[in-house]
Amino acid sequence: MLEKIDLKQSVSKEEYKTLSKKLRDQIYVLQQQVRKKKLPVIVLFEGWGASGKGDLISNLILNLDPRWCKVHSVTQPTELERRRPVLWRYWNFIPKAGDFSVMDRSWYMDVSTAVLEENINDTERTRRLNSINTLERELTDSGCLIIKFFVHISKKEQKERFEKLAKKRSTQWRVSEQDWKRNRQYDKYREVFDEMIGYTNTTAAPWHLLSGTDHRAAALDIFKAVLSRVTEALNRSPERNASAETGIHPGSYPFLPMPKLAQVPLSHAMEQDEYHLRVEQNQDRLRELHSELYLKKIPVILAFEGWDAAGKGGTIRRVAKALDPRGYQVIPVASPTPDEAARHYLWRFWNNIPRDGHISIFDRSWYGRVLVERVEGFCTENDWRRAYREINEFEHELADWGAVILKFWLQIDKDEQLRRFQARQNNPEKSWKITEEDWRNRGKWDQYETCVNDMLKYTSTQYAPWHIIEAQDKKFGRIQTLQLIVDALRDKCGEKKPRGKKED
Amino acid sequence: MLEKIDLKQSVSKEEYKTLSKKLRDQIYVLQQQVRKKKLPVIVLFEGWGASGKGDLISNLILNLDPRWCKVHSVTQPTELERRRPVLWRYWNFIPKAGDFSVMDRSWYMDVSTAVLEENINDTERTRRLNSINTLERELTDSGCLIIKFFVHISKKEQKERFEKLAKKRSTQWRVSEQDWKRNRQYDKYREVFDEMIGYTNTTAAPWHLLSGTDHRAAALDIFKAVLSRVTEALNRSPERNASAETGIHPGSYPFLPMPKLAQVPLSHAMEQDEYHLRVEQNQDRLRELHSELYLKKIPVILAFEGWDAAGKGGTIRRVAKALDPRGYQVIPVASPTPDEAARHYLWRFWNNIPRDGHISIFDRSWYGRVLVERVEGFCTENDWRRAYREINEFEHELADWGAVILKFWLQIDKDEQLRRFQARQNNPEKSWKITEEDWRNRGKWDQYETCVNDMLKYTSTQYAPWHIIEAQDKKFGRIQTLQLIVDALRDKCGEKKPRGKKED
Repeated sequence: MLEKIDLKQSVSKEEYKTLSKKLRDQIYVLQQQVRKKKLPVIVLFEGWGASGKGDLISNLILNLDPRWCKVHSVTQPTELERRRPVLWRYWNFIPKAGDFSVMDRSWYMDVSTAVLEENINDTERTRRLNSINTLERELTDSGCLIIKFFVHISKKEQKERFEKLAKKRSTQWRVSEQDWKRNRQYDKYREVFDEMIGYTNTTAAPWHLLSGTDHRAAALDIFKAVLSRVTEALNRSPERNASAETGIHPGSYPFLPMPKLAQVPLSHAMEQDEYHLRVEQNQDRLRELHSELYLKKIPVILAFEGWDAAGKGGTIRRVAKALDPRGYQVIPVASPTPDEAARHYLWRFWNNIPRDGHISIFDRSWYGRVLVERVEGFCTENDWRRAYREINEFEHELADWGAVILKFWLQIDKDEQLRRFQARQNNPEKSWKITEEDWRNRGKWDQYETCVNDMLKYTSTQYAPWHIIEAQDKKFGRIQTLQLIVDALRDKCGEKKPRGKKED
Repeated sequence: MLEKIDLKQSVSKEEYKTLSKKLRDQIYVLQQQVRKKKLPVIVLFEGWGASGKGDLISNLILNLDPRWCKVHSVTQPTELERRRPVLWRYWNFIPKAGDFSVMDRSWYMDVSTAVLEENINDTERTRRLNSINTLERELTDSGCLIIKFFVHISKKEQKERFEKLAKKRSTQWRVSEQDWKRNRQYDKYREVFDEMIGYTNTTAAPWHLLSGTDHRAAALDIFKAVLSRVTEALNRSPERNASAETGIHPGSYPFLPMPKLAQVPLSHAMEQDEYHLRVEQNQDRLRELHSELYLKKIPVILAFEGWDAAGKGGTIRRVAKALDPRGYQVIPVASPTPDEAARHYLWRFWNNIPRDGHISIFDRSWYGRVLVERVEGFCTENDWRRAYREINEFEHELADWGAVILKFWLQIDKDEQLRRFQARQNNPEKSWKITEEDWRNRGKWDQYETCVNDMLKYTSTQYAPWHIIEAQDKKFGRIQTLQLIVDALRDKCGEKKPRGKKED
């Protein structure tokens, strides 16, 4: 790819002045359209050291109103970032609808730098490249525009620039040993860049390759590319935003066979004495396992879904009781805040991914996309149909990272729900828990049942299985859940050697 | 203080069962009141290693609905946290109105641990203790409830607990070398704890000292304390929330003499040629200084205030143009989002404090409290009167950390504003910039002028001075601003030796 770039083009100062003024004004006006049409825009810059990325970014953002434009510089991940999935930190940079995110380096750093300087192997490299393509596809499918620039200079040019910086006292610190090494190994880097760019030059998010030799020429190229890509995105009809999906396309994962809800038996029950005994046994075991997970740095993600009043809260409390409060977090999921609603729907879940060795318990989850959002029409049909695949990919990313993922559907029947609603309503301390909305949702029981059946069918994988909990009898359901968690964690702990220590 | 604690009290299992059930139910009900009255509650736990803090926290939070309760574990600061003021990371834990924040360790860690293990000197210790008292006073003044627990055990008890943990294979990792050392130096730690507790046992945020010997007794004490403190806070009238201030009380800082706005000359102007020359000169100098600041790890905070249409945006762009986009951020301040409005008004500004070596440019700032909020009645009179002192303390905290703080008021007269409003309205590309609100604000010119004069009088300090910019002539104002920034940064850079390197 890189050989296609003409490194010799240049633009005179006069020419630049006239042309850039016009383009700048156009960008300024265009940003108002971006605001109005609520288009989220990512502009990312990759390229060689000393290729002038910083100045080019500076040049671009001066035309953008800082109220709706953020610059993110990506440096080596911090220790806490390393304790999360590779892509995790980039979700922070996803812009709100109508905003620009300008990124100096990006998720591509975890391919190029990692291949050459951290020696990740070929499998991991391919995995990361695929993850990037998935991420970019999901973002553009959701309506985000991604503009990717690679700023290219020759080996000789780079060397001369380093030498110039190194000569001046005030800039010599900008050239590190690593930089010189990178210049010496220019050809190796070039090969990696070439492969990376080729692999990720997708229709959804194509690369713009620039010559960094002449700053003015590069700046004009950037202005033009931003203008044309943004204009194009603004004129696209929302229907054509997303990959055309005519049906549900959950991806090509092997799915676990799941029963339909109607087939789930609900007749099991448990006596008080047995319940107490088994709660304690399981909690003791879970307590020990939590400590083991922590040492082995295994992350755990538990998602609870179920009918209203099925007992999610009570079940979660029984699980939480066994856990060290320093190592887990319950994440209650309600309707999104304005900040959340203005971003990709997975954004708020990515934000709550635990660090390794910790547990995140989701009280409702990303499955809202194919449940409430589908039923209530909060997203388009295309959106929720696409979501099965996106969710499978999301969970796959987490599983690749090493997470234990367990998903529970708490099942009760319609009569039991009515009994519980009425009991709550008659209890002054609990009546606030029953709202108009709960009754409305109950009226849509059949629609929800269809959605739940689809969800179970298309998103239960080996690496993130669904478990249907017989919650008709609360005690039975709680023990069933605790037991499933204990079993899954024990299996996982068996696989891995400890590598942790106390966080002081 | 610690000697007052009865380490021998204990509660039988039976007694605990009966009592705790009742107290738990009360807490559950009380949380609904906390929601309704929008009370933010901080419950923080300090205490000896192995005193059982974790279990006690677990016990408490199981009674609280996780939708409105977050647990924060404080461990040693990360590298990025060390690059911010000591208190910075705790602002993340400030709860929203109606929520609980439960903290396992807290800002006290930066006194106790730091004194004994990082050898901070007496001056720094006293400074940190004062900062804590200030923080707690500001939070409680704003209506937040702070409940502080210290869990105490004897040296012998601690040793026995460590030994018990160390004996069991599954728990031995929980006892570190540092823990054993702490036990050996128990008396030294005790002295530091005693002093720390005594110094910070304020009316606003008193300590609750607990014996950790018997877990059940401690748990009951915690339930009771939470119930009584929350009930008391709910019954307090909002007027009595804040320290009674009968007038403006800006704190005892030496203030710089400032002219009244009416006395500011606005007749200066600058020719185009001189302007271009001096913009470039200053930008070149600023570019070099930015790189020096970065190396010397000096943080810079610039706040811009001024009349509508005074030219804040244009001035900021001239400053930004000289800066490396990797090292600065423009923070436009508009009306707070719901998340921001539900917290202390300084919360969103703390969140945008740069790391050391970086620059934050605020386009409008925390001074909104004593300008728009005062004029529009968005806060109470007590709130804005208190704010001068709070703001001086806030800036003092930043200056102590080493920040350069510069504040600019862009001054134009009323006629000039009218001319600019009209010019904008007649320009189709800029007409969106003028809203009804701008005209309304203009109608309140005199009220604003009073507020600005008060602000200049009570918040211009040596460590965070106000500069009034003659912005009547845009060019003159921009040069004046650039020049002031360059001078201040040059002075600061002169003081400090470099200690940074490139962030790779």
